[in-house]
Amino acid sequence: MKLAEIARRVGGVVSGDAAVEITGVAPIETAGPGEITVLSRQRYMKWVPRARASAIITGEEFAKSIKWRTLVIAKNPYEAFSVVLHLFTPEERIPKGVSNRAHIAPTARIEDGAAIMAGAFIDAETFIGRNTIVYPNAFIGYRAKVGAECRIYASVTIRERCQIGDRCIIHPGAVIGADGFGFNSDAQGHHKVPQIGRVVIEEDVEIGANCTIDRGTVGDTVIGRGVKLDNLIQVGHNVRIGEFTVIAAQTGISGSTKIGEWAQIGGQAGFAGHIIVGNRVKVVGQSGVIGDVGDDETIAGYPAVDRMRWLRNTASLERVGDFMREQRASERDRGRKLPDNRQAPAKPEKKP
Amino acid sequence: MKLAEIARRVGGVVSGDAAVEITGVAPIETAGPGEITVLSRQRYMKWVPRARASAIITGEEFAKSIKWRTLVIAKNPYEAFSVVLHLFTPEERIPKGVSNRAHIAPTARIEDGAAIMAGAFIDAETFIGRNTIVYPNAFIGYRAKVGAECRIYASVTIRERCQIGDRCIIHPGAVIGADGFGFNSDAQGHHKVPQIGRVVIEEDVEIGANCTIDRGTVGDTVIGRGVKLDNLIQVGHNVRIGEFTVIAAQTGISGSTKIGEWAQIGGQAGFAGHIIVGNRVKVVGQSGVIGDVGDDETIAGYPAVDRMRWLRNTASLERVGDFMREQRASERDRGRKLPDNRQAPAKPEKKP
Amino acid sequence: MKLAEIARRVGGVVSGDAAVEITGVAPIETAGPGEITVLSRQRYMKWVPRARASAIITGEEFAKSIKWRTLVIAKNPYEAFSVVLHLFTPEERIPKGVSNRAHIAPTARIEDGAAIMAGAFIDAETFIGRNTIVYPNAFIGYRAKVGAECRIYASVTIRERCQIGDRCIIHPGAVIGADGFGFNSDAQGHHKVPQIGRVVIEEDVEIGANCTIDRGTVGDTVIGRGVKLDNLIQVGHNVRIGEFTVIAAQTGISGSTKIGEWAQIGGQAGFAGHIIVGNRVKVVGQSGVIGDVGDDETIAGYPAVDRMRWLRNTASLERVGDFMREQRASERDRGRKLPDNRQAPAKPEKKP
Repeated sequence: MKLAEIARRVGGVVSGDAAVEITGVAPIETAGPGEITVLSRQRYMKWVPRARASAIITGEEFAKSIKWRTLVIAKNPYEAFSVVLHLFTPEERIPKGVSNRAHIAPTARIEDGAAIMAGAFIDAETFIGRNTIVYPNAFIGYRAKVGAECRIYASVTIRERCQIGDRCIIHPGAVIGADGFGFNSDAQGHHKVPQIGRVVIEEDVEIGANCTIDRGTVGDTVIGRGVKLDNLIQVGHNVRIGEFTVIAAQTGISGSTKIGEWAQIGGQAGFAGHIIVGNRVKVVGQSGVIGDVGDDETIAGYPAVDRMRWLRNTASLERVGDFMREQRASERDRGRKLPDNRQAPAKPEKKP
Repeated sequence: MKLAEIARRVGGVVSGDAAVEITGVAPIETAGPGEITVLSRQRYMKWVPRARASAIITGEEFAKSIKWRTLVIAKNPYEAFSVVLHLFTPEERIPKGVSNRAHIAPTARIEDGAAIMAGAFIDAETFIGRNTIVYPNAFIGYRAKVGAECRIYASVTIRERCQIGDRCIIHPGAVIGADGFGFNSDAQGHHKVPQIGRVVIEEDVEIGANCTIDRGTVGDTVIGRGVKLDNLIQVGHNVRIGEFTVIAAQTGISGSTKIGEWAQIGGQAGFAGHIIVGNRVKVVGQSGVIGDVGDDETIAGYPAVDRMRWLRNTASLERVGDFMREQRASERDRGRKLPDNRQAPAKPEKKP
Repeated sequence: MKLAEIARRVGGVVSGDAAVEITGVAPIETAGPGEITVLSRQRYMKWVPRARASAIITGEEFAKSIKWRTLVIAKNPYEAFSVVLHLFTPEERIPKGVSNRAHIAPTARIEDGAAIMAGAFIDAETFIGRNTIVYPNAFIGYRAKVGAECRIYASVTIRERCQIGDRCIIHPGAVIGADGFGFNSDAQGHHKVPQIGRVVIEEDVEIGANCTIDRGTVGDTVIGRGVKLDNLIQVGHNVRIGEFTVIAAQTGISGSTKIGEWAQIGGQAGFAGHIIVGNRVKVVGQSGVIGDVGDDETIAGYPAVDRMRWLRNTASLERVGDFMREQRASERDRGRKLPDNRQAPAKPEKKP
C-alpha cells in the first residue's frame, strides 16, 4: 500500500515521498525497510537516529524535531497508528458453527452466527447471542446469558445466571460469577453465606485474562458499559464499576465498593470494602484506598491521599533523615555553645 | 412466606406487621415491595429514607434509630440474613452422574453419588469421594484424592498425588499442586529442583478462583481445616496455613512460611519466605510481612509493624513536611533575631 | 540406597555411618528414620535437637555446629539436596500419544514423541515439537509454535502465532498471548487498538500457574532464554525480559518495559510502562519501580530507590514521630527559657 493511501486513511499529511510502498508495521526499534512505525513519546526519540523504517507516523509537536525523511503527520498519532494496525492485522481465522465436541444442553439457545468450539460447555437454559464466539473449554452456566458479537475465550468460566452484554470480550481464564467471599464466623468456624446474586456485565466491556469477578451475595456485581479491565483483577461481591472506567492489571476491589464512571485506576491498587469512589477519579498504581473518594480526585499512596500531598510526603520522607541528623548536630552545636553561654554569665559572677 | 415465619426461622422478633408476605431478598439499595433486606452497618443507614423493602432485618443497636415500619430484630443480623438467603436461594441444578464426555481412567475410583461433568479429566489411580461434583474441564492428576461432598469447579487443576479433604470447594481456575518455585542457580542458569512433595488440603476448606497453591519441594504444602482463601491468592511450596485462617484476595505467601490458626489476613498482603506467623494474627491489607510475628498481633505496613505504631508513623509522615518547614522558618527567624540580639547587646557597647 | 552411594552421587563426604540405608527424603521437621534431609539455613538449626532423620545433608559451615550422628557434608548442600530429590522422585506417569478426545486440526504438525491429552485443542497450522506434552484442556491457537521437550500443563492458553522455545514449562492456567491492554479513548469511550504482535518465549523458560503474558501491540513481547516466572505474574504488551531473570509471584510489568538479564525480582513488585531496568538488578518484593534502573542496582520501596536509602528512610520514619515530639517539648522548654533570656538581657538595660 502506498504511503499516500495510508496517510489518506489515517487523515494525516505526508512529509517526504508519498509514493513509498508500505508492506508492514512494527515498533520503532525493529521496523525495517517497507515498514511504518509510530513515534508519539519523547522517550522514544532516541531511537530515531538508528531507525530503519520507511515512514514514521508522528504528531505536529514532534514533526519538526524528528528530522526524518518520510513522515505521516497526524493530529492524534496513536489513533492513526491504531488505524494502520487495522490495515495490517494478519488474517484472523474466525471460528464458525457449533462443534460436535462441545457440550450444548438441549435447552440452550444459540443464536444465528454464534460459534461454539470443541470442549465448550453450554449449560441448560443459557442464551448465546448472534455472532458470539465461545472458544474451547469455556463454561457457560445454567441460565447464563451472553449477548451478541462477544468473544468468550478459552477456559473462561461464566457461572449460573450471570449476564454478559453485547460486544464484550472475556479473555482466557477469567472467572465470572464465582461465589463472593462471605462467611458467618463463630467458635466452630466460618459458615458460608449463600451467594445468590449475579454478575451483570454491560455492553462493550473487556475483562482481562484470569480476572475474577465474584457474584453478588444478594443483588448484583455490576460492571458498567464500556469498562476495560486488564488482567488478574479481583472484583469482590456486589461491587459496581461505573461506565467507561479503566483499571490496570492486578488491582483488587473489595466487596460492596462502588467505583464511579470514567475513573482511571493504576495496576496493583487495592480498595477496601463498602467505600464509594467518585467519577473521573485517578488512582496511582499500588495505592491502597481505604475511604470514600470524591469526584475528580487524583490519589496515591497507602492510605491513599491526594497525589500532590503524597508526593510531598514522599519527598519529606526522603529529606527527613538528613533533617534529623542536621538538627541533632545543631543541637549538639547549640549544646556546646550553651555551656559557653552559661559559662559566660558565670564569669561576671566570678568577677565580683 | 409470611414475615412471622421468617422471623421464627432466624430467631428474631418482628416489630410491625408480621403478616406481610415476603417473596424475595435484595440489598437495601434495590429491595422493593415484597422483599426483605438487612441493615447491619452504620454507613448503610443513609439508605433507609429511600428504602422500599417490605422488611428490614437489623440488630438491637440499630432498631431504635431506624424508624422503619417493619423490622425483624435479630441478635446477629448478618447471620439472620444468611438464613434468609438460604430460604430464597434460587433452585440450583445439581449435576448428576458421570458424563461420557469426561475422561475417566479405568483405575480411577469414583464413589457413589459423585458427578463428573463433560471434559473433566480424571487420571489413573485417583479417588473421587461420595457426592463430590467435578465440573467441566477440571483436571484431577495421577493418584490425587478428593474427599466427599466437594465441589471442584470448572477448569480447576489438581495435580498428581495432591489431597483434598471432605466438603472442600475449589473455585474455577484454581491450580493445586503446580511445581514450587525452586532452582539451583549457577553461571549456566537456573536448574530446576525437583518438586516431589504434595498439597494437602484438609476438610471444609474453600479455595478462591484462580488461586495457585504450589506443591512442597519435599513434604507437603498444607492448608488447614476450615481455612477460607479468597481469589487470586498465591501459596508457595511448603507453606502451612493453620486451621480456620481467612485470607483476602491477591495475598501472596512465599515458600516455607507458616501461618497460624484463626489468623485474618487482608488483601494484597505479602509474606516473605521461611517466617512464622502466630495464631490469631491480623494483617492489614497490602502489608509486607518480612519477619516472624507473635500470636495475637495486629500488623500493618511494609515492613509490617504493630498496627498502632504503623498508624503513628503514617500520621508522622503526614505532619513531618510541615514540621520541617516550620523548623526551617523558625531557624531563619531565630537567625534573623540572632543578629538583632547581637546588635542589641552591641548597642550598649556603642552607647558608651 | 546406602548413604555412601548417596554421598558419592552428590559429591559429598559422610561423617558417621555410611552404611545406613536411606529410603526417602523429607523436610527436617518431618523426616523420620530411614529418611535424609537437608540443613542449609541458620533458622532451621533449632529443629536439629528434635530431628529424627537418619542423615542430614549440610555444608561445611554448619557441619561443626550441628552435632548430629550422620551427616553428608557437601560444598553446595542445596544442590546436593536437589540431586537427592531426583533420586527419590516418585515414579511419574508420562503421558503418551495423541488422545482421540483431543481436537487436532488436520493442518497441525505434531512431531514424534509428542503427547496430546484429552480435551486439548490444537488449532490449524500449529507446530508441536518432539516429546512435548500438551495436558488436558490446553489451547494452542492458530499458527502457534511450541518447541521440543516442553510441558504445556492443563488449561493453558497459547493464542495464535505465539512461539514457545524448546524445554519450556508452562504451568496450569497460564495465558500466553492475550490482547495487550491498549485503547484510544475519546468522549465516546475506549476504542480497542488492534494487538497484532506475538509473544515469543525463548528456550528453557518456566512460566508459573495462572500467569498472563500479553501479546505485543505490534512486534513481540519477549521472554528471554532461561527466565523463570513464578505464579500469577502479569507481563504487559511489548515487555522484554532478558535472559535468566527470575521473578517471584504476583509481580506486574506494564507495557513496553524492558527488564535486563539475570535480574532478581521479588514478589508483588510493580513496574511502570516504558521504563528500562538494567542487568542484574535486584528488586525487593512489593517495590514500585517507576523509572529507569541502572545495571546492578538493588532497589526497594515505592517509588523504588536504592535499597540502603530505602532502609534509611524506613528507619527515619520509625524515629521521626519521637523526634518531632522531642523537638516540640524542647521548644516548649526553650520557650520557657526564652522569656528568661529576654528578661536577662533586659536586666542590664534596667541596670543603667
